[in-house]
Amino acid sequence: MEADLQAMFNPGTVAVIGVSTSNPFHPANIIYNKNYYGYDCDVFPINPRGGELERRRVYRSISELPKKADMAIVAVKAQIVPKVAKECADAGVRSMIVISGGFAEMGEEGRALQDELVEICRSASITLVGPNCFGVYAPPVVDSFFLPPERTVLPRRGNIAVASQSGAFLVDQIMTNFHEAGIGLSVAVSMGNKAMVDEEDLLLYFAGRDDTKIICFYIEGIDEGVRRFIASAKEVAPSKPIVVFSGGKSERGKAAARSHTAALAADHELVEGALRQSGILEAETESEVTSFCKILAFFQHRPMSLCNIAVLSSSGGHGVLTSDLAAVAGINVPEFSEERQHEIRRLLEPNIQDIAALVNPVDLTGSASDQDFERALDYLLSKDDIEAALVLTLPYTPMMTSFVGTRLGQVVKKYDKPVVAYVPNLAKYGMVLEGFELNGIPVVHSIEEGVQMMKALRLLGDSCAR
Amino acid sequence: MEADLQAMFNPGTVAVIGVSTSNPFHPANIIYNKNYYGYDCDVFPINPRGGELERRRVYRSISELPKKADMAIVAVKAQIVPKVAKECADAGVRSMIVISGGFAEMGEEGRALQDELVEICRSASITLVGPNCFGVYAPPVVDSFFLPPERTVLPRRGNIAVASQSGAFLVDQIMTNFHEAGIGLSVAVSMGNKAMVDEEDLLLYFAGRDDTKIICFYIEGIDEGVRRFIASAKEVAPSKPIVVFSGGKSERGKAAARSHTAALAADHELVEGALRQSGILEAETESEVTSFCKILAFFQHRPMSLCNIAVLSSSGGHGVLTSDLAAVAGINVPEFSEERQHEIRRLLEPNIQDIAALVNPVDLTGSASDQDFERALDYLLSKDDIEAALVLTLPYTPMMTSFVGTRLGQVVKKYDKPVVAYVPNLAKYGMVLEGFELNGIPVVHSIEEGVQMMKALRLLGDSCAR
Repeated sequence: MEADLQAMFNPGTVAVIGVSTSNPFHPANIIYNKNYYGYDCDVFPINPRGGELERRRVYRSISELPKKADMAIVAVKAQIVPKVAKECADAGVRSMIVISGGFAEMGEEGRALQDELVEICRSASITLVGPNCFGVYAPPVVDSFFLPPERTVLPRRGNIAVASQSGAFLVDQIMTNFHEAGIGLSVAVSMGNKAMVDEEDLLLYFAGRDDTKIICFYIEGIDEGVRRFIASAKEVAPSKPIVVFSGGKSERGKAAARSHTAALAADHELVEGALRQSGILEAETESEVTSFCKILAFFQHRPMSLCNIAVLSSSGGHGVLTSDLAAVAGINVPEFSEERQHEIRRLLEPNIQDIAALVNPVDLTGSASDQDFERALDYLLSKDDIEAALVLTLPYTPMMTSFVGTRLGQVVKKYDKPVVAYVPNLAKYGMVLEGFELNGIPVVHSIEEGVQMMKALRLLGDSCAR
Repeated sequence: MEADLQAMFNPGTVAVIGVSTSNPFHPANIIYNKNYYGYDCDVFPINPRGGELERRRVYRSISELPKKADMAIVAVKAQIVPKVAKECADAGVRSMIVISGGFAEMGEEGRALQDELVEICRSASITLVGPNCFGVYAPPVVDSFFLPPERTVLPRRGNIAVASQSGAFLVDQIMTNFHEAGIGLSVAVSMGNKAMVDEEDLLLYFAGRDDTKIICFYIEGIDEGVRRFIASAKEVAPSKPIVVFSGGKSERGKAAARSHTAALAADHELVEGALRQSGILEAETESEVTSFCKILAFFQHRPMSLCNIAVLSSSGGHGVLTSDLAAVAGINVPEFSEERQHEIRRLLEPNIQDIAALVNPVDLTGSASDQDFERALDYLLSKDDIEAALVLTLPYTPMMTSFVGTRLGQVVKKYDKPVVAYVPNLAKYGMVLEGFELNGIPVVHSIEEGVQMMKALRLLGDSCAR
């Protein structure tokens, strides 16, 4: 299968079948324009009635094209998709993405149509993604997502590959959240009904991509493809961490998944256990998907069995809430000995020596300066029993400067230990944020996300220890 | 007590004790400048060494002031606070905010100092907020939060009053999140060690404020003040909903709370049960604080026992995840009958009639238009068994326009039912967002927050049914 997916992600020539000469918002038109103006593939529009698009010829069928198409992207009514697929087979197309809905997710009639489509593709050795999907986002070559580019945001290029059973969840949550969190993406796939290409195929393909270091999946329910995916994950996870978020856990969620992509109901406990046993990191919330992927992008090569973290804050309340969240996530925030507290206190500036609370979480108070954070962090990371640190910086406080990120970054470079910084989500702190991230410290905008990142490291360590 | 708190929130003349003539970042200087330039109170700087601040006289003591001070804001070392308090008592000050830390939260010695301070205030009938706090934010009169204004954001004026045991959590989480969510604030109080003014005092004061319709508290642990607060909440909650977020639930969190504001450990189950029995809505996460307050700001006068909601989406995946989250939150998303599905289908445009999935969550697909949403929502709100709706709009999809918010707003105005809209958190959707909110539909940026809002309505209904 892997060879065929190469063709899916690297087509030289692409036919977009179903463009309208009257409706510029038709999905096929958006796909055609997107690729014509923004991607490297050579793209041709097709509509049986022919005509023109901005003075460029619209071809009546794939057999009319001046070049052989490697890939066909199809957005026509479900009923005529089999006919189109036959023409693609005759034209020697190697891969096909069917955007159209109206297949297995709509009941028996649609399922028959889908079976027919698969049969045609299989006999002609065409690799099929979909139907009922957004397809493949593979910059800079091709992008079959039918959303107007001016309405969407894209994550920067990077080393995480994502596949999702829901196209909208992929675009609206994963890709948008990645954009906001500054996480880089290599490729993304909306799998839809998974009539042919499924989770396992994509996992193995991602595993072989040099530009991909982390793999992320959104799945709904469990079926044969997911079972094989879980089995194969065992081989992949040790070299490329795999994050999975699973929808359709509740009874009503399962029902919704059935009518969405014809997904089969699954017992959630079974899924959970199987994921864990394969070394997969299961994200329990949408927010964990982003947190897990981001911390792995910063610290993927440091599998560890995370036991003890230090929490460094300028706010007692933040420390209290961090302790609560850490307890739920199974993260240990060990109480520091009197001796250690004494040693930290000696490092602090006189104005906070008498008011800082140093038990862990360490509360340096709202009068703390960059220097106090720098010294306390350096001291704590030097201790063997402290494996990671969560630094809660509030740039509100008067003595903190915009250098705090770069200063703490220099400290972190001395040690091979993950450190995560909390910085409030305000545009005015952009400068501080960059100082952290450019120096190897990922930034989160909520305490919860910070604890989620520590949880990812703990899960990764657990899976390595197995 | 109420009369004294009036003085705390409406001082005519304020003395800021502890300003520095050399360090412009000293908390007292920030407080002095903030009030001098930005608030209605008449404010005077005090330092025993005298001198000048930008050519304005610094007074040596409160007795030197040209006018009697109603309020003193004190930011000097803990050890000299009792001496300052005596001078305030002699000068006839009615209310005092002690910003300084170094009291009960630091152990026995500090506790003795705090007891001395309280004794002085009590004998002189001075109302005391703090010590170890940010104090009072009461626009447009006075603001004792010692944070540089250029580093913070403030929520707009509105009808929610907030009190918090953690100043930093109040500023960094509640007020910042309110700012981002567009929630309006009447007053805010950081209570610190609560040596005198405590949760119950503030609850009763907020209950009497005409500009306050919703009350929100962050508490850590349970003590005498919190116990009285919970008892009094029973009287207040029926007319003004009360949202409480409680930190220090875990063992380590409790320990952190002790070293933070000398809070007493509490058994979390006890707190939970007591809050519920008093009709308080307990927010379980930071995010729920914002969601609960925002939905109450839109729908406070509609206590209801929420049973069934409709979920309207252009994405199957979003529907699946909503179902999962609703199940956990105890919200019912009832499956629609074949007949109802048929009736909805007839209202849809031809291009989606064959592909929309209408079981509830209703998935109108990525090809849906504003009109499809408008008609489906109108139909569903007209049904007696549907008490509220969650509308998941993805303005990514080609057929949606910027009118979707205002159009759905017109539908909602026909019915007395809460509707919440999900709109992704992108600057480019600001126009859509305003269309919703100006027409009575609160907007959330995650599915989770939408479900949290439905949960708030359910909790409110439960508490009214009791």
